[in-house]
Amino acid sequence: MKRLALVGSTGSIGQNTLRVVEHLPERFSVFALAANSGVERLAEQTAACRPKVVAITDKERVDDFCRHCRDLKVSPPEVVTGDEGLRQITSAAEVDIVVSAAVGAAGLRPTYSAVAAGKTVALANKESMVIGGELLRTTAKKTGAQIIPVDSEHSAVDQCLRSGQRGEVRRLILTASGGPFRETPAEQFPHVTPEQALKHPTWQMGKRITIDSATLMNKGLEVIEARWLFDIPPEKIDIIVHPQSVVHSMVEFVDGSVVAQLGTADMRTPIQYALTYPERLESSVAALDWTTVPRLDFVPPDRQKFPCIGLAYQSIKMGGTAPAVLNAADEIAVGAFLERKIPFSDIPKVIGGALEAHKLQAAEGLESILEADSWARRHARQMLD
Amino acid sequence: MKRLALVGSTGSIGQNTLRVVEHLPERFSVFALAANSGVERLAEQTAACRPKVVAITDKERVDDFCRHCRDLKVSPPEVVTGDEGLRQITSAAEVDIVVSAAVGAAGLRPTYSAVAAGKTVALANKESMVIGGELLRTTAKKTGAQIIPVDSEHSAVDQCLRSGQRGEVRRLILTASGGPFRETPAEQFPHVTPEQALKHPTWQMGKRITIDSATLMNKGLEVIEARWLFDIPPEKIDIIVHPQSVVHSMVEFVDGSVVAQLGTADMRTPIQYALTYPERLESSVAALDWTTVPRLDFVPPDRQKFPCIGLAYQSIKMGGTAPAVLNAADEIAVGAFLERKIPFSDIPKVIGGALEAHKLQAAEGLESILEADSWARRHARQMLD
Repeated sequence: MKRLALVGSTGSIGQNTLRVVEHLPERFSVFALAANSGVERLAEQTAACRPKVVAITDKERVDDFCRHCRDLKVSPPEVVTGDEGLRQITSAAEVDIVVSAAVGAAGLRPTYSAVAAGKTVALANKESMVIGGELLRTTAKKTGAQIIPVDSEHSAVDQCLRSGQRGEVRRLILTASGGPFRETPAEQFPHVTPEQALKHPTWQMGKRITIDSATLMNKGLEVIEARWLFDIPPEKIDIIVHPQSVVHSMVEFVDGSVVAQLGTADMRTPIQYALTYPERLESSVAALDWTTVPRLDFVPPDRQKFPCIGLAYQSIKMGGTAPAVLNAADEIAVGAFLERKIPFSDIPKVIGGALEAHKLQAAEGLESILEADSWARRHARQMLD
Repeated sequence: MKRLALVGSTGSIGQNTLRVVEHLPERFSVFALAANSGVERLAEQTAACRPKVVAITDKERVDDFCRHCRDLKVSPPEVVTGDEGLRQITSAAEVDIVVSAAVGAAGLRPTYSAVAAGKTVALANKESMVIGGELLRTTAKKTGAQIIPVDSEHSAVDQCLRSGQRGEVRRLILTASGGPFRETPAEQFPHVTPEQALKHPTWQMGKRITIDSATLMNKGLEVIEARWLFDIPPEKIDIIVHPQSVVHSMVEFVDGSVVAQLGTADMRTPIQYALTYPERLESSVAALDWTTVPRLDFVPPDRQKFPCIGLAYQSIKMGGTAPAVLNAADEIAVGAFLERKIPFSDIPKVIGGALEAHKLQAAEGLESILEADSWARRHARQMLD
């Protein structure tokens, strides 16, 4: 029986993680749940899976949480709060696996805490790796923590890598749906609306990641994530546009063989893979039905039309705190676009501007990374004003 | 440095094997070559790679071979002949890897000899496994021989299986090009010509296997081969038609993940994989070029239109010598079709008739298998007369 701490339990990944746990009750129990502010859902989850501890980032929501628990006739478990609360549950001796599924750069602290404590980390919060990849890698080496990706692309890569040795990899090929504007001419980009951008062709996801899929920044962030997760230089990581999202990613080996992972677009598959790794267990996800699989397309991405890809590669090349700046500026720019303050086509401009203005630092500690993150947010906001 | 015995060196797989050896001269040397009757090419190969021994099945071609060697100013190596000659080179102490690439059921004896001698066997002669799978499996278990597939589909399956444990496999999915008659209505089958049937859409291969691809019997034989190679029950082996032959086969795991192997249609990839297994080395084969990869289709095969698939599964169910009968009757029927003695649509009828008339035996020894093979050939010929 493995005991989980689930950070970001009320989000989409968090909810799917609980479905996987429910499907495998003899394998997993929930020691702790953590959420930012969605305390009503957190109370429901508490009623369903009875964690020993609950972490609520926002102290002021604790009373609300307890009230919701009483409404559900559940006595509230121990409640911890803030960064310190997250640190407690992610490093608790009772925890075997930390599922890191918070949203955004805020995920770095709990991820780091889990890695520093030598836990197995099922990593869904890609920002952790994007902004703190080097730190997390070095720390994991020291503590023996194992980081297993939950992103469908990285889970696919992980599965494909098993078909050979690390030195036999020619390149990783991350598939991208291409987003809703794959066939939209670049000239129309200044005029696309948030509503259009939020229509992802294949995956149901949060707002920021959906916009990041429309700019292809999401794929750029995944390149950075892959660079650190698999310790592979960026020139060996490619992107291919595959609108049907049936192939979740591939690995090309030096002998010319390409190994790919395919499946239905259901996050429970990579979540379960990460939780049961290195085992595979029967899943409750429907198998890929070949009678309904459409024709599969593969085309190289248009890097001119989607400059966010180039910005992501540029930030890896710059190194240090540059990916943290890229990520933070993107988050601010996406927010501004969703609030209709800037056109879609300005998102890469805001990011490029931040990268250019940034005074590069080594990304050796949590603080320097988070400082760069804050700086980039301030800078991007200033640019927008 | 691994030393090879290459059985069937003058055929298509044999020639490609020598290209792989040439590409990796620091890894492989050729100890022995074996051919049936193509002694001119055998002499050329002797001149190029200087084997210590050459096996020629047909004694009467030895003089010719020596003459061709002298023409090429090569002193002929030791020549051995017949079944005994093949037995000698496939079990020689100097040999590490036997490449079994003879054509048809005749490949069983040398394959068995190599397996009995505990060699690593790169198996391209699928008939060995189809007719003698059980025997080869049991023998390999005893001697520690390793059988590594060279068929592109089985090589793909082997590569995909590495992504999980054997008990985690839900099913193997063998891809089939569908052959040249994929879209031809069954009503036209009585009228198709050998010329039409010999036009394989994606692979350049020998005549029998090309016709077997047109009837889909080739895929049926591959199901039987997979059954024994991977020790997996036939109900866990599926076929899917994939006309572009970019995906060479797949494995579906119990967690719903499907792992696929893709590549260019070049036999040097699976040959090299088998020779260097479990390593992967840089290949001289061009990488898959994603800018030229067409859309990929996947559709279930039409089992009514292609009854050979059902016959193959039936023969596995019958067990014992039934697959040997299936294979032999098919070879005779294909020959008769190529000689325009029977229509294309009669091929499955000849095979079905032989399976029905056969008195099933256990396939425990070489002799009972080869006897069933001979019986089926006689029976099929009689049916045709």
